[in-house]
Amino acid sequence: MEALQVGLAGFGTVGTGVAKILLEEAAWLERRSGRQIRLKRIADLDLERDRGVSLEKVQTSTRVEDILEDPEIRVLIELMGGIEPAKSFVLDAIAAGKHVVTANKALLASHGTELFQAAEAKGVQIGFEAAVAGGIPIVRSLREGLAADRILSIAGIINGTANYILSTMTEQGREFPECLKEAQEKGYAEADPSLDIEGQDTAHKLAILIGLACGVSVHPEDIFTEGIQRVTGMDIRYARELGYRIKLLALSKILDGELEARVHPTMIPESHLLASVGHAFNAVYATGRGTGPVMFYGKGAGMMPTGSAVVSDLVSLARNMRPGMPHDIPALGFYGQFPQDARLRPMEELVTKYYMRFPVVDRPGVLSKISGILGDHGISIDSVIQKGRQQAGPVHIIMLTHEARERDVRHALDVIDRLEVALDKSLFIRIEDSFDPPGLEPA
Amino acid sequence: MEALQVGLAGFGTVGTGVAKILLEEAAWLERRSGRQIRLKRIADLDLERDRGVSLEKVQTSTRVEDILEDPEIRVLIELMGGIEPAKSFVLDAIAAGKHVVTANKALLASHGTELFQAAEAKGVQIGFEAAVAGGIPIVRSLREGLAADRILSIAGIINGTANYILSTMTEQGREFPECLKEAQEKGYAEADPSLDIEGQDTAHKLAILIGLACGVSVHPEDIFTEGIQRVTGMDIRYARELGYRIKLLALSKILDGELEARVHPTMIPESHLLASVGHAFNAVYATGRGTGPVMFYGKGAGMMPTGSAVVSDLVSLARNMRPGMPHDIPALGFYGQFPQDARLRPMEELVTKYYMRFPVVDRPGVLSKISGILGDHGISIDSVIQKGRQQAGPVHIIMLTHEARERDVRHALDVIDRLEVALDKSLFIRIEDSFDPPGLEPA
Repeated sequence: MEALQVGLAGFGTVGTGVAKILLEEAAWLERRSGRQIRLKRIADLDLERDRGVSLEKVQTSTRVEDILEDPEIRVLIELMGGIEPAKSFVLDAIAAGKHVVTANKALLASHGTELFQAAEAKGVQIGFEAAVAGGIPIVRSLREGLAADRILSIAGIINGTANYILSTMTEQGREFPECLKEAQEKGYAEADPSLDIEGQDTAHKLAILIGLACGVSVHPEDIFTEGIQRVTGMDIRYARELGYRIKLLALSKILDGELEARVHPTMIPESHLLASVGHAFNAVYATGRGTGPVMFYGKGAGMMPTGSAVVSDLVSLARNMRPGMPHDIPALGFYGQFPQDARLRPMEELVTKYYMRFPVVDRPGVLSKISGILGDHGISIDSVIQKGRQQAGPVHIIMLTHEARERDVRHALDVIDRLEVALDKSLFIRIEDSFDPPGLEPA
Repeated sequence: MEALQVGLAGFGTVGTGVAKILLEEAAWLERRSGRQIRLKRIADLDLERDRGVSLEKVQTSTRVEDILEDPEIRVLIELMGGIEPAKSFVLDAIAAGKHVVTANKALLASHGTELFQAAEAKGVQIGFEAAVAGGIPIVRSLREGLAADRILSIAGIINGTANYILSTMTEQGREFPECLKEAQEKGYAEADPSLDIEGQDTAHKLAILIGLACGVSVHPEDIFTEGIQRVTGMDIRYARELGYRIKLLALSKILDGELEARVHPTMIPESHLLASVGHAFNAVYATGRGTGPVMFYGKGAGMMPTGSAVVSDLVSLARNMRPGMPHDIPALGFYGQFPQDARLRPMEELVTKYYMRFPVVDRPGVLSKISGILGDHGISIDSVIQKGRQQAGPVHIIMLTHEARERDVRHALDVIDRLEVALDKSLFIRIEDSFDPPGLEPA
């Protein structure tokens, strides 16, 4: 069978991994694909830097158009990132009848339906195994392995930067700013880390996971998103004292037919498998109605893990592409009309347990005042920690609540934050004690 | 598109789950498959028992031939188990041009190549996602998601019965016989549990995993297999004291181009993710050259988890089957000649750390005698535990060794077991401190 010729746009870290695998593992990939996969062209603005890959047999240029205009190339590998010009190049590739493989979660989360529709109309595919959780084959697992089941909930640690920072804070008792700086020095965080630490990258990936699991479309900007910047070493210490770990979680649940989707720092029991997912690792924990809980764990980023995921999509294309016969599994694995926009449950309706920290003046009656306000809002307290005063500064009252409604919590904390005894804004972290929907046998 | 009609042979626990899903989730499955999947016939010797499934629209009989002879049925779902008559029915189905979906690991491990060759010659497929680790989509993950990578090692907890018994022994400090009895009463172990507790079921599944990961054929009887019957509560307590858990592991590694494959009780660090996989849960931890470590976790058995896995294969068939056009991804995901028999590294060549327990007379000089014999065999001791004598009976000397060769260990223990001071046969458990091949970044 003739070789599958591919072109790579974006020769950064992941692009280098892809080139390495295609060039160095050609024999293995042929055995896996039933034909050769030939990297014919690479386009990148910087072609000078040595990536440690021999490009003798590859044509390089600074123009993605050279890939798009080459009729022999059947697949565009888009690793440029960002929305534009990546989106235009992807649409041009589709219009030219080329398949696309991409790791671009921002693009897919924001414009997935448009791209998938264009691809379907043209009879080409978009592979995106690398767009969520790097080396973990979660896209195929949701689209194929678990396709017979209904996924009732998803809880994911799917941003390696945020997880690295929280893990370092937890293990070394250090504060956010210095851990962020160290992550940047070690290459685990970008120079501008905002997408990672503020949670948007996690929300992008969650939107993709929901589409694959539930067959509905969710706009990432509709997902409640809170980053890890406000988590302090003190909160992590109290969480540990209470038997919890703090993780940036992507959460989605189907509750009474409504969809809940949110991204925020979350306290989870230290005995839960997700609590053991440290540093740059990712994990997706999902609960299926029939399958029960499953978890997928691995490296969420990096040259070779993400590069391997990109190439796995090329292997699938090589296996399935036969002349004149488009392989037509829909991108999200759902047939019929395109996924409808999901109606998300408003965040104010969330019911969960809360960890709260109040920095207050050390004065008699403060505890009673705060708990009175919480009680007035229907919030019931499970436990309280108040330790002796520090040398200077506020005392911190820590409370764990029973299940309460987010709206009530915010109202109550607004009132408490305006008290004269409040020395700083209160902080709260949502708690997830179980990831398995009610009625299912627990893990 | 016309419905995909299927016939089910074997209406036991998993068969009931499959029927439930096909009958109760028809609309969901149509959306996932792009066509209806219709359960037309069920064959089982016992058709009287009420399984809680309405069979109004299904034709039942006691003869599998009724499925094989029905030209409308395109897929035989084989859930009878065992080698014969399952094997003959599968071959007859293939000869009749029907696809096969099976959960029969014993059949695939022992006769997989023969069945896969017959299927390929006839242009039909054999789906077996349910044959390994029930609800975990590990077959597709190895065949497709990780197809671009080389899997260097596999460590699996893939027998729920053995894991349930070891977990109960660990948590409750009880002994093997009573935990086995309880597992049988609770339905986690069969009346004849030998395949599970003696390790053969694990070896069957390991043979299948190696085929999918490495593209070589391994006969399960060539895999060194040791069950959990000899593990005592005392060994579990000592393991805990030393920071380890004992699990029945399926292990495979590529070392210097040779393949190691073994199944035995193994001490693993309590901090490793696999140590948290308890009770009836399964997990497969694999390390890819590029991807690094990945882990897949979920329920390894049961009506709905395994039933969902069976139906996921039907969904894949429904998606890929088009008239006149066989979907020809090879069963193990490797093209070219059929997998060659792997040359396994002899077990005597294994090099690992060992836990050893010697039941001996409490007498001066015994420790020196034993450590002397170990030293004579080139085995170096890392640590020793010897506690005060019990009321009656032997004292137990516990030793952890540095890396040693299995052949030397067996020779040394033969000598020690013949000592006059030895009150019972010594016991040893192999230790795995790391599952990641040397040279790879650790997990």
